Amino acid sequence: MEELLGLREGSSGDPVTLQELWGPCPRIRRGIRAGLEWLKQKLFRVGEDWYFLMTLGVLMALISYAMNFAISRVVRAHKWLYREIGDSHLLRYLSWTVYPVALVSFSSGFSQSITPFSGGSGIPELKTILSGVVLEDYLDIKNFGAKVVGLSCTLAAGSTIFLGKVGPFVHLSVMIAAYLGRVRTKTIGEPGNKSKQNEMLVAGAAVGVATVFAAPFSGVLFSIEVMSSHFSVWDYWRGFFAATCGAFTFRLLSVFNSEEETITCLFKTSFPVDIPYDLPEIFFFVALGAICGVLSCAYLFCQRTFLAFVKTNWFFSKLLATSKPLYSALAALVLASITYPPGVGRFIASRLSMGEHLDSLFDNKSWALMTRNSSPPWPREPDPQNLWLEWYQPEFTIFGTLAFFLVMKFWMLILATTIPMPAGYFMPIFILGAAIGRLLGEALSVAFPEGIVAGGVTNRIVPGAYALAGAAAFSGAVTHTISTALLAFELTGQIVHALPVLMAVLAANAIAQSCQPSFYDGTIIVKKLPYLPWIRGRKISSHRVTVEHFMNCAITTLAKDTPLEEVVKVVTSTDVAEYPLVESTESQILVGILRRAQLVQALQAESPSWAPGQPRCLQDVLAGGCPTEPVTLQLSPETSLHQAHHLFELLNLQLLFVTSRGRAVGSVSWAEMKKAISNLTNPPAPK
Amino acid sequence: MEELLGLREGSSGDPVTLQELWGPCPRIRRGIRAGLEWLKQKLFRVGEDWYFLMTLGVLMALISYAMNFAISRVVRAHKWLYREIGDSHLLRYLSWTVYPVALVSFSSGFSQSITPFSGGSGIPELKTILSGVVLEDYLDIKNFGAKVVGLSCTLAAGSTIFLGKVGPFVHLSVMIAAYLGRVRTKTIGEPGNKSKQNEMLVAGAAVGVATVFAAPFSGVLFSIEVMSSHFSVWDYWRGFFAATCGAFTFRLLSVFNSEEETITCLFKTSFPVDIPYDLPEIFFFVALGAICGVLSCAYLFCQRTFLAFVKTNWFFSKLLATSKPLYSALAALVLASITYPPGVGRFIASRLSMGEHLDSLFDNKSWALMTRNSSPPWPREPDPQNLWLEWYQPEFTIFGTLAFFLVMKFWMLILATTIPMPAGYFMPIFILGAAIGRLLGEALSVAFPEGIVAGGVTNRIVPGAYALAGAAAFSGAVTHTISTALLAFELTGQIVHALPVLMAVLAANAIAQSCQPSFYDGTIIVKKLPYLPWIRGRKISSHRVTVEHFMNCAITTLAKDTPLEEVVKVVTSTDVAEYPLVESTESQILVGILRRAQLVQALQAESPSWAPGQPRCLQDVLAGGCPTEPVTLQLSPETSLHQAHHLFELLNLQLLFVTSRGRAVGSVSWAEMKKAISNLTNPPAPK
Repeated sequence: MEELLGLREGSSGDPVTLQELWGPCPRIRRGIRAGLEWLKQKLFRVGEDWYFLMTLGVLMALISYAMNFAISRVVRAHKWLYREIGDSHLLRYLSWTVYPVALVSFSSGFSQSITPFSGGSGIPELKTILSGVVLEDYLDIKNFGAKVVGLSCTLAAGSTIFLGKVGPFVHLSVMIAAYLGRVRTKTIGEPGNKSKQNEMLVAGAAVGVATVFAAPFSGVLFSIEVMSSHFSVWDYWRGFFAATCGAFTFRLLSVFNSEEETITCLFKTSFPVDIPYDLPEIFFFVALGAICGVLSCAYLFCQRTFLAFVKTNWFFSKLLATSKPLYSALAALVLASITYPPGVGRFIASRLSMGEHLDSLFDNKSWALMTRNSSPPWPREPDPQNLWLEWYQPEFTIFGTLAFFLVMKFWMLILATTIPMPAGYFMPIFILGAAIGRLLGEALSVAFPEGIVAGGVTNRIVPGAYALAGAAAFSGAVTHTISTALLAFELTGQIVHALPVLMAVLAANAIAQSCQPSFYDGTIIVKKLPYLPWIRGRKISSHRVTVEHFMNCAITTLAKDTPLEEVVKVVTSTDVAEYPLVESTESQILVGILRRAQLVQALQAESPSWAPGQPRCLQDVLAGGCPTEPVTLQLSPETSLHQAHHLFELLNLQLLFVTSRGRAVGSVSWAEMKKAISNLTNPPAPK
Repeated sequence: MEELLGLREGSSGDPVTLQELWGPCPRIRRGIRAGLEWLKQKLFRVGEDWYFLMTLGVLMALISYAMNFAISRVVRAHKWLYREIGDSHLLRYLSWTVYPVALVSFSSGFSQSITPFSGGSGIPELKTILSGVVLEDYLDIKNFGAKVVGLSCTLAAGSTIFLGKVGPFVHLSVMIAAYLGRVRTKTIGEPGNKSKQNEMLVAGAAVGVATVFAAPFSGVLFSIEVMSSHFSVWDYWRGFFAATCGAFTFRLLSVFNSEEETITCLFKTSFPVDIPYDLPEIFFFVALGAICGVLSCAYLFCQRTFLAFVKTNWFFSKLLATSKPLYSALAALVLASITYPPGVGRFIASRLSMGEHLDSLFDNKSWALMTRNSSPPWPREPDPQNLWLEWYQPEFTIFGTLAFFLVMKFWMLILATTIPMPAGYFMPIFILGAAIGRLLGEALSVAFPEGIVAGGVTNRIVPGAYALAGAAAFSGAVTHTISTALLAFELTGQIVHALPVLMAVLAANAIAQSCQPSFYDGTIIVKKLPYLPWIRGRKISSHRVTVEHFMNCAITTLAKDTPLEEVVKVVTSTDVAEYPLVESTESQILVGILRRAQLVQALQAESPSWAPGQPRCLQDVLAGGCPTEPVTLQLSPETSLHQAHHLFELLNLQLLFVTSRGRAVGSVSWAEMKKAISNLTNPPAPK
């Protein structure tokens, strides 16, 4: 009966195969199949692209892990070589220096020979791209290999060169995101949807940060703060999803590879939980933030000045133009010679890797108190249980070593940033900040050896907490971000210092943001990339500046009745990308936009059929198939500068036409905006 | 000599007073004074308003702390009364129920009598305001008192009524922010700058959340996610500053009041740090997220349905219309009777306050394992050291109590949300989620009493971690936010479960967002507040819909040559807020916007001077001083729906005129957008 029913249902609806009919429980199976079908439709409906986000996260995690794995092998080989080579100073020196020199010059030569875009961190360029500028080929997947190989070599040179991974990794991730976006457009459709592509890039940036630090929260927030001035909650959610997939896979791999027992954070700390700090210490945390802010201004200024010096000095610029690997090798030789451990290197803890630097600086014991009465010798090899011994030299004390480390690494980092190879600059800055904080923390632990007495209770001061706050504050000030505070918590797995660290970061940012452009903005300025400045002078008078005061009135309009000869003359004599198309020369009513490239093509196609005696005008070319674009947005002369700036920023625009009563009267682009904004702060001299 | 030099310098520059001249070190003092002057200029320059933000944070922290303090006294008095009243069941029952009934009916009556806006959480209305709608008087400081008193009474009713503080606190904070914004406009200037005022409101929302939970990070992010669809990094930084000031002051007060020894988090947990969870547990965390997602859909559906039922049912609607306090008292009586501890209340841990609920649910010991062999009796009074005993009844076991708690609180919370008084709904939802997670965690700890064996190492399962994940996932799903995960970490001071909790929240959000509108959006729909829906159906065809397909073509334009009689007719027969002003009736070229209110005023001023025989037109009124507003932004018929939606959302617009070749051809407002968006998913039947 059951089967008969099934048969009847089958015959009235879908045809039922024999196998289906005779298998057990045909109804249930059909139900399950329908359910799966429904789930599939729900999950993979058009427009959904969570699987692309997941792919992006997983791919980047795989790459990040594989890169870390390969690099750790190379570093281990270097250590082995240095250890086994014997006691001859010359041999040891050579084995210490040749390795990074070779890696750096190879990295520089290889990546530069494939593509000139691969140098530096890539974040400034991405910032420009996300604000709407098209930088040709910058996100092409072809550059991927160059960047991966170059970055691996840079990182394999280790703490000698003292460069990080974040920036290039964000670039790599965005490259893959752009590639996946193109794949999606091909498979799903939705061509020409620029905002969709941007969504993918934003998620890519978040994944880049998250897969380096295994920190999804700060990955998303840091990439947002660095990349854009506005963002949508929708992008933020997508970023979280992709970043979580990435961070999870990244940490999962190290569990699978038996490096860890379970998924934990990268730099585990053990700060006391019950009373992590005494209330009066808040003052010192804020003071630390202020110190970090001032030092970050000094750093940013020196870095930008030196970068400009290298670009303009005839010797360096010639060297960089003709032989990049040689310059890189020279710089690496200087850096490696200084870090040679039996020489100056022993005073700057140069035998530690960058991860070990952080691990040791976040230590919650006070080194100054531990070495007050005893003076442990410098170990032959870094002791994994007591990494902090690397920071102690009896003749220098802890304070001497930390201060010397700061001074040396300050200029060494600036030198390293000029080497033209793929490298990140966030991690070294983070470590510098940690050292600043540690120095203050150690000083406080000596000044108050019994802790600060508040309310009758004494608690020891934890210098590691200051290192944490210093790292967050200094890196936050240099990059003009606040989410570095969150990053510090995600890296260490403890959030007990939430308020003091956040206050330090805010203090540092307040100073840095009012004095210097951020690291990435500074690079944009030095590299002369296009950018739209903020309106800083928030004066009342700035609200009275309207578009008609600064728009470009000298626009070339093309009217439908313009003779073709004149169109050709206009096209050949100007080189703007878009022309406003107006109804007639007389009325100047804006009706559309003509792209130069398409117009040239149409003119070329048209030209053979020209009959000399026949007067023809633009209308004929348009009728012949030259596409015009509709004007979807137009400014009025009365629009204020603030409104126009807001529009440009929010919608990632680069050019808008200004119409007055329908007539095209001008245009506004970044160039005009920039000029108007600079006039706000430095009013032009009256004529 | 030194003094002489000082004199000479003084005489050439500023005049020097005698006192200055004869005091010690005149130069240094002058230097210090100049430095202070410079600092003052730097800190208090026009346009800076950090001190308003700081004031906002500190004020809200003071209010929050004072409110908590007062409430704790009232609650303590209630507890004392209940304890001391003797063993008569009737007296005890009365003392248990009369208190909340009186408080709730007073709260409802008092706040509703002062202002009808004070009911509910306020977040839906704020969301509407921040999207650009003007809700008259909603942010007026006059309502402040009503909301504060009402909220205090609601909270003093304690866990009987089971309502929270977040929503109304956000509303209070935004009220103060709006007030401070008006003060700033008066003292500094910059009138009419709407975006500046919005900036202040956004910061206010962040402060509201941060001062309730002492959680600056999640305060900022939660308020952003709940309030807006887009936000600027600039607002985010300001939010951080204000929220940090608020959270710091809030915690500082409890240190000053000797409740805490130093600044720590609110619900400290002690999860194991080294191996917080085993890798396979990730599955259970994600499954928990999915369960929370499904339950949140059920909750949202029931809540919305019941709210609509109460509004439409003749009995309830009549009761609510005529006698709100009576309805509130009845509902409170039902809730209080059920929670009477010797009755049903003992099975739903009703003697615990809401904070104790959370504290006990985040406990890292497994209750099920502890009660497997022993059966501790129900204590006479809740034991602060063993709060979890409240969750255990020998005849019910832990699982029975937790499940019963969930089932009862589910409908009790829905009932409580219908009471018209100031109350927040986030905290109860957070606790419900914690209970869901705890139930799963306890079940797992029984199923795997030795922990899950992975790689030869065994670790006990921590049910508290599941409670944490459940709380974050359920509250995240109900409010459609992800930052609840961060809130869970900030509340507990531990971030070791970052990845599993985040994955649970993402899973819960994926389910909830695809099935139900969020709690706040649902309330907006039920309360019929204006809102702009998302474009959900991301179909390819949706990109082909342009403004001309859905714009309102039936607009009434006023031409400069329209006779005044006709203008009057138009003004009296229509009730739009703005009229497009066109050049002439014939050309219809858009030249400006006329506000109805101003036009009416100008017409009234004009009317006495009308001479009947003299034909006058609109031009004369305009020349007479009626102000016109410039058209700063206009759409074209070719603008796509997506672009227009983007513009409306980004710029908080409500109406834009559409021009084609300069001629005003239509208008687009939220009504048209909504219709167009609903047509995307349900295409209209072809005619």
